[in-house]
Amino acid sequence: MSETVILGVEALTGRAEAIFRKAGLSSRHAAALARVIVAGERDGCKSHGIYRIEGCLRTLKAGKVSPDAEPILHDDGSAVLRVAAGGAFSCTAFELGAPVLAERAKRLGLAALAINDCTHFSALWPEVEVLTGMGVAALAMCPSYSTVAPAGGSRPLLGTNPIAFGWPRPNQPPYVFDFATSVAARGEIELHRRAGRALPEGWALDAEGEATTDPEAALSGAMLPFGGHKGSAISTMIELLAGAMIGDMTSSEALDWLGTTALAPRHGELILAFSPERFAAGRPGDPFARAETLFEAIVGQGARLPSQRRFAAREKTMAHGIVLTAAEAGHLDRLEAQGLDAVS
Amino acid sequence: MSETVILGVEALTGRAEAIFRKAGLSSRHAAALARVIVAGERDGCKSHGIYRIEGCLRTLKAGKVSPDAEPILHDDGSAVLRVAAGGAFSCTAFELGAPVLAERAKRLGLAALAINDCTHFSALWPEVEVLTGMGVAALAMCPSYSTVAPAGGSRPLLGTNPIAFGWPRPNQPPYVFDFATSVAARGEIELHRRAGRALPEGWALDAEGEATTDPEAALSGAMLPFGGHKGSAISTMIELLAGAMIGDMTSSEALDWLGTTALAPRHGELILAFSPERFAAGRPGDPFARAETLFEAIVGQGARLPSQRRFAAREKTMAHGIVLTAAEAGHLDRLEAQGLDAVS
Repeated sequence: MSETVILGVEALTGRAEAIFRKAGLSSRHAAALARVIVAGERDGCKSHGIYRIEGCLRTLKAGKVSPDAEPILHDDGSAVLRVAAGGAFSCTAFELGAPVLAERAKRLGLAALAINDCTHFSALWPEVEVLTGMGVAALAMCPSYSTVAPAGGSRPLLGTNPIAFGWPRPNQPPYVFDFATSVAARGEIELHRRAGRALPEGWALDAEGEATTDPEAALSGAMLPFGGHKGSAISTMIELLAGAMIGDMTSSEALDWLGTTALAPRHGELILAFSPERFAAGRPGDPFARAETLFEAIVGQGARLPSQRRFAAREKTMAHGIVLTAAEAGHLDRLEAQGLDAVS
Repeated sequence: MSETVILGVEALTGRAEAIFRKAGLSSRHAAALARVIVAGERDGCKSHGIYRIEGCLRTLKAGKVSPDAEPILHDDGSAVLRVAAGGAFSCTAFELGAPVLAERAKRLGLAALAINDCTHFSALWPEVEVLTGMGVAALAMCPSYSTVAPAGGSRPLLGTNPIAFGWPRPNQPPYVFDFATSVAARGEIELHRRAGRALPEGWALDAEGEATTDPEAALSGAMLPFGGHKGSAISTMIELLAGAMIGDMTSSEALDWLGTTALAPRHGELILAFSPERFAAGRPGDPFARAETLFEAIVGQGARLPSQRRFAAREKTMAHGIVLTAAEAGHLDRLEAQGLDAVS
């Protein structure tokens, strides 16, 4: 086994931030990006950890994301808030909007935040967890770019369109799920290809729209939605609500604009926040205590709550640091030394 | 083939209404129930058509639903409206709340309607379609009673927890989906049992929590969520938002209260309404026209939009009337003549 490097969360955040600043991101964007990337690494969620830095730099180098646009909050006092991200990464826009969204949900019971014109590369759970930390439940969703065929279809049209939900829990991490509405993530198909393994049935279509278990054929064809026509309907709803409705790109438009699936996509995002206290007002029982009864019943019959593996990894890294392989550490060194020259 | 009876929508509504009034429902409740039941029959959705009348009467006879409680709207001017159904059927409560919900969504961009203490037996699509008819997009969900094991679990805990979504379309029926978050409806398992057919794999567990394809074993065991852990997470979210959060029963509590799965369940319901015009304000493009582009792309590659079979059936029955079999017509006659004495 090659040597590993152990870094604290703060130290790794500092390194990621330095890489982004050197690549030309403003301090504000560099810091926001570093936070979500290190959150992924901290939670053992390698697919959304430092692995993503290179994709961000490539998107920057291709001129497909603004390095320094300042997000602008539009607030007319209603239940719908908007942050115009100005073509920059979404993280800063979210950080600007989140506290206002939570406050508005507490005042009106329910509120929405639309983020427009952002490049979105992070998982949704970091955002949902920021909101549960503010005492509200949250439902987040966004398009992606066309890689998924609708159920019964033959060609890529929908994105992997993630949906995430969070519910605050007293004295412990929130109830959180976050998943792609495709049956598998594109990265999983890529992993099968590299390993020379066939895909499970029902994951993908080839370029002719026929079912395939060949990962190579799948990558030039289309992925399928999870759960057949039901998942396909949810994915379509995400295109409508977090694309057409908020006046931002659908997955099809995002792919046209970007011209490739190799860079982080530009589109919008929709986040709903609910105040359980406001919804439960005047009704019997405390909503948070009643939710715990439900969670206990789930765990009590041997099922898992989502995100538990991630929370366990977090506990470990918070106590013992983040472990990087020698290759990962070397990659970071190279990105830090060479900046945008390190990526093609 | 035995003789069939053809009735217009109005005539069938009148008959259903008369049955409900005779059984003791107030005129207001009888009319509201008749409307949703005939909507099911009109759309060729037999599982939610006149077949449901008997279950309503049984629930009434068992004293588990109020025949005449008047729904009360609570409106504090915020984004959260509440209708207290007072233990009666949900339809009247929905009819009271829907126009206020649509108006509030248009004013604030987004609003929610919580219906509490209702007996819910209808599909969600009639409600979603009322709201799209008022120009708003809608997302509706409710618990049920415990018949579904969480993914990885062994016993019934979640309900079949339906979720429905609607998006208004100019000059044609809306985009609507409405499905149970269980992989199959309980009625489908019952149909397999009657036909002596094995269930597909992945539908159910037996009473010991083991996977089964035996419908009999499944009915005394648990159904499974659609889409594995993803569907299970969505179903759990429905318990949280439309149960714990709105201060109403979860599926587990609903089953405890009712003591059987043979009657219609008492619980609450949550409906969100979105004003696409408000969400899209100031952004390029008309959200409704952009949605049509998406629908065309789905249909253009040979996939179907949800509910199209229902809308086709509707067009046919609106032109030619609703066709009842001789058995169905006889059943209606019997319910009309005998009232509550017709049910056990």
